[in-house]
Amino acid sequence: MVMISVAEAKRKIIENCPAPKIIQVPLAGAGGFVLAENLFAPMDAPHYNQSAMDGYAFAYNDWDRKSGLDVIGEVQAGNTFKAGIKPMQALRIFTGAAVPPSADTVVIQENVQREDNVIFIKDPNLLKGNNVRIAGSQTKKADLVLQKGHLLTPASIALLAGLGISYVHVFSLPSVSIIATGKELLKHGECLVEGKIYESNSFGLNAVLHQMGIFPSSIQIVDDNETEICRAINNQLHVDILLITGGVSVGDYDFVIAALKKCAVKTIFHKVKQKPGKPLFFGTCNQSLVFGLPGNPASVLTCFYEYVAEAIKCYTQNQFFNISWMPLSKSFSKKAGLTFFLKGKIFHNKIEILDSQESYKMNSFALADGIIELEEPKEKFEQNEMVRVRVFV
Amino acid sequence: MVMISVAEAKRKIIENCPAPKIIQVPLAGAGGFVLAENLFAPMDAPHYNQSAMDGYAFAYNDWDRKSGLDVIGEVQAGNTFKAGIKPMQALRIFTGAAVPPSADTVVIQENVQREDNVIFIKDPNLLKGNNVRIAGSQTKKADLVLQKGHLLTPASIALLAGLGISYVHVFSLPSVSIIATGKELLKHGECLVEGKIYESNSFGLNAVLHQMGIFPSSIQIVDDNETEICRAINNQLHVDILLITGGVSVGDYDFVIAALKKCAVKTIFHKVKQKPGKPLFFGTCNQSLVFGLPGNPASVLTCFYEYVAEAIKCYTQNQFFNISWMPLSKSFSKKAGLTFFLKGKIFHNKIEILDSQESYKMNSFALADGIIELEEPKEKFEQNEMVRVRVFV
Repeated sequence: MVMISVAEAKRKIIENCPAPKIIQVPLAGAGGFVLAENLFAPMDAPHYNQSAMDGYAFAYNDWDRKSGLDVIGEVQAGNTFKAGIKPMQALRIFTGAAVPPSADTVVIQENVQREDNVIFIKDPNLLKGNNVRIAGSQTKKADLVLQKGHLLTPASIALLAGLGISYVHVFSLPSVSIIATGKELLKHGECLVEGKIYESNSFGLNAVLHQMGIFPSSIQIVDDNETEICRAINNQLHVDILLITGGVSVGDYDFVIAALKKCAVKTIFHKVKQKPGKPLFFGTCNQSLVFGLPGNPASVLTCFYEYVAEAIKCYTQNQFFNISWMPLSKSFSKKAGLTFFLKGKIFHNKIEILDSQESYKMNSFALADGIIELEEPKEKFEQNEMVRVRVFV
Repeated sequence: MVMISVAEAKRKIIENCPAPKIIQVPLAGAGGFVLAENLFAPMDAPHYNQSAMDGYAFAYNDWDRKSGLDVIGEVQAGNTFKAGIKPMQALRIFTGAAVPPSADTVVIQENVQREDNVIFIKDPNLLKGNNVRIAGSQTKKADLVLQKGHLLTPASIALLAGLGISYVHVFSLPSVSIIATGKELLKHGECLVEGKIYESNSFGLNAVLHQMGIFPSSIQIVDDNETEICRAINNQLHVDILLITGGVSVGDYDFVIAALKKCAVKTIFHKVKQKPGKPLFFGTCNQSLVFGLPGNPASVLTCFYEYVAEAIKCYTQNQFFNISWMPLSKSFSKKAGLTFFLKGKIFHNKIEILDSQESYKMNSFALADGIIELEEPKEKFEQNEMVRVRVFV
């Protein structure tokens, strides 16, 4: 199978993503999801004319600007004053309380002189309607409040809560399973012997999925054995996205590609013109997407940020790791023919290419703020040249 | 009590935060936490000399560059070849497998001609040590791997997993409770009547706490009644941070300040020279921090992002919402004497001040990308002037 470009690989992934699923969730758990519906206001907000301050409510046009106003009662937030008020009367009122229908203006308590039950307004600049929040002045009933595609931030949640909206339709998170393959893999707690390594890819993938709100359905470590890999794959093809690490090259002991074929996973592409992660595999089986991630830990996470995250975005409609363009702190040369993905750290608004870029080393990745993409055909990148950075911190 | 500046309020909060708590967590759940210890490598990584490619391992200096090498066996990743190899011998080797002690170089399989059990190396540029990852070349045993204060990204988790580190000490998240006060507050599902509003502040606070990985210990809605507020506060003073909304002004029905005094909460400050959120209260009781957040929803979330998030940072050592400096899309004027916090949206790398900035309106906050801070003494802000933005999306 011919090696394809990074852009083509991403296009093929997006083309093969199924339509996002829509679920209804309680508002209190909807933060971080993207709205899958246009939301219209079920009510005016505020629902009634509301005092914005502690003070006195009265009818502005009936006020003669000379005499005092008779205070005929009071209304606290949460209560109403049903009787209504007459000309030259006033109602003691508190922030948030309903302004009675016959009143239209509130004078703040600091600007009145009160003598027993009479107030004298000492505010020459007071205008009709001051300190009253008119019903519907934030949102009118039936207004479009938030659009389909809107990311539900905490403020969005508070807005909807205030409108009495208790459930919303959002784009679902995909279900994800992880299979790490390799005869050399040890679990934590197992004794370290020559030739074996502690399995780390499932830890990195699990952590980045958690960041996105996804808790893997299953995490398995499987020996380099076609039958066992095939069984593990078959058991997980019910998920939306299956992530397999290791064994995707064409070595004598790379069984993942053969196992995927046996499991009826259709190959969409295998091998991308990139470093690291050249042997990346992507396939589909019914509605499931299957990623075969090269086994080196830096390749696994790079391919996750660049490809798997794109697939997850198709489901959630949420871009988790933003792209920025930043000046390169130092010039850099590479060969043409492969896109390079390099671990970078932001210093003084520039992006610095870290040492230790080999795909088996995680020490630089652990310190990185993002992944720098250097395009396939280019060989020379100048100091201060703007480069694309996928920022993940 | 005298109104203080925003900077002074923040300083007082930080001064009153207790020392952060340190907990031990399993590595798989440590993502997003900040390390509370320097971590040293318990082993070399790689642990052994490792082949970087599929190919043949041999001893470079013993190779005469003319003759073929005898292939005497093979080693797969996860296995070892104990026998060792002699001069002019080679071992079939696969990526990740241990290079036997007497070999030091791997030639990749594409660069050999194999005839039965003899290989001829067709790589004039091959150097001693090529395609071998030397033991300790990523990390040497006892090296400082990650420093105290390091944010545990997914790549950090993968790095530590590869070193066999199963538990880490991190700075704990604080426990948080929420008390929303107000006679006017309705719960979702209750019938909307004049003078009442749907309680929304606990929804916004809950959502932003979730973003930070914090699940509130308790969320209560309490009537404007000093005894009930006092009881609710007393029941929650075991948490690290208590958030109370509403009732912090000095109106006839603002009972929170009085209740806090009765509950032996020591006032650190009350009222800040800012808009919105002027009546902000901050106090302490033993190890607990208590925030009295003004009741308007935009004030609550603004004070959360600007003040409560600072306190949470003292616990977690993690800055959740970054500060950026961005050019203002249009000029803006305000009165001197108060710091303004305004809802802003990023358009083409500039920050635009949204409409509907009143503290009872959440429609603009729901669309905002961040909060713009306009300093207390300044009145005029020019187009393209750089302003401080706390970005939260």
